[in-house]
Amino acid sequence: MITLYGFAASNYYNLVKHVLLYKELPFQENLLYSGSDELLAISPVGKVPVIKTAEGLYLSESSVICDFIEETYPTTPLYPENAGERAVVRQIMKVAELYFELPSRRFIPYVFSGTEVPESIKAEARQVLTRGVTALNRLCQFSPWVAGEQFTMADIYVYYVNTIVSAFGSSQLEWDVLAEIPGMKAWNDTLSQSTIAQTVEADRKANMPEFMQKVTALIEAANATKPN
Amino acid sequence: MITLYGFAASNYYNLVKHVLLYKELPFQENLLYSGSDELLAISPVGKVPVIKTAEGLYLSESSVICDFIEETYPTTPLYPENAGERAVVRQIMKVAELYFELPSRRFIPYVFSGTEVPESIKAEARQVLTRGVTALNRLCQFSPWVAGEQFTMADIYVYYVNTIVSAFGSSQLEWDVLAEIPGMKAWNDTLSQSTIAQTVEADRKANMPEFMQKVTALIEAANATKPN
Repeated sequence: MITLYGFAASNYYNLVKHVLLYKELPFQENLLYSGSDELLAISPVGKVPVIKTAEGLYLSESSVICDFIEETYPTTPLYPENAGERAVVRQIMKVAELYFELPSRRFIPYVFSGTEVPESIKAEARQVLTRGVTALNRLCQFSPWVAGEQFTMADIYVYYVNTIVSAFGSSQLEWDVLAEIPGMKAWNDTLSQSTIAQTVEADRKANMPEFMQKVTALIEAANATKPN
Repeated sequence: MITLYGFAASNYYNLVKHVLLYKELPFQENLLYSGSDELLAISPVGKVPVIKTAEGLYLSESSVICDFIEETYPTTPLYPENAGERAVVRQIMKVAELYFELPSRRFIPYVFSGTEVPESIKAEARQVLTRGVTALNRLCQFSPWVAGEQFTMADIYVYYVNTIVSAFGSSQLEWDVLAEIPGMKAWNDTLSQSTIAQTVEADRKANMPEFMQKVTALIEAANATKPN
């Protein structure tokens, strides 16, 4: 059986969990937070999520885990059969990661520590997000799914990327980024109403208080080591 | 036949070109620079490289292109047959991209415009590169290849990532990053002596003067639009 390591407040954790639930694969969850020694022992970069495969192999990086799950458990496919269409799905995921997720993530340390985001960081993030908006407008179909008629890995991936865009990118920039892509918000709402998304969201909410305690403890520890 | 769009001074362009040459696939090169209208017409983010597939589909993002080429032309394989081993190869590529390539790239605009890199950017990049060093030390085998006995996509990928780490990351931080990973430099030297790497390098050198002219023109145009 697959073991999924991490915590439910993480959108990367949740996207892998959504994939496992969608494919109806049996798995167990093992709660580990970033920075813990247990996590560093099984992840080269100390990142969440990690999976332990049925063969006992530990794998990190969400996109790598998604590909592994698909290739190992091809039933209920999440990539199109045609190599070109599969590449388009991967291109959407990659653009969402580089131009939506990563710039929005830059705000997280500031938000968690309650400090103002420097204008230079905001300007950089806005520029990267603008490229993402242009690119996703060209790539996304929403007919009815992100890459067309078939529900794919890109639907799950972009959905969880969008949670970070909304929670950090849009709020810090006071800019409704998702509204710049016609069809994105309606598609997002549809997906959020699925049973799996609601299960994942309930688990996320349940984990939030403990996760925020961990964040607060880390910030206090960091401040305590700073010279006065 | 595949068409490869971009310019030979780009390491991303060169890694895809190396894959095509390694697999002995017929392709033609079409010189396009970043920021050109022709490139924007075929790439959603306006990035190099782009390939046009034999079926006329345009694809961006090096990792997506690599996967497409492998899946469409499986002869002379660059991924292991076993799904777990394939995931390890992809994990090495992903870690090299996120923790070696991207932080090193942050220095490029400063180097090209001849301005000093702010200490805050240096500190951030050093932190990310340090995580990359730890992770690649755990993941890379060099026995004799990056992922073990088989020459894989990770060898080609990390080799071209390393060109950016050396040219920008290491030089700006005055820190020999690659030397932190035992085996990395010897492996890098071996690969640089291959016929394909030498062909790619000769083309890169030939393109550099024209590429630097383009960069200079862009910087002058940007400066001309700044208020006095």
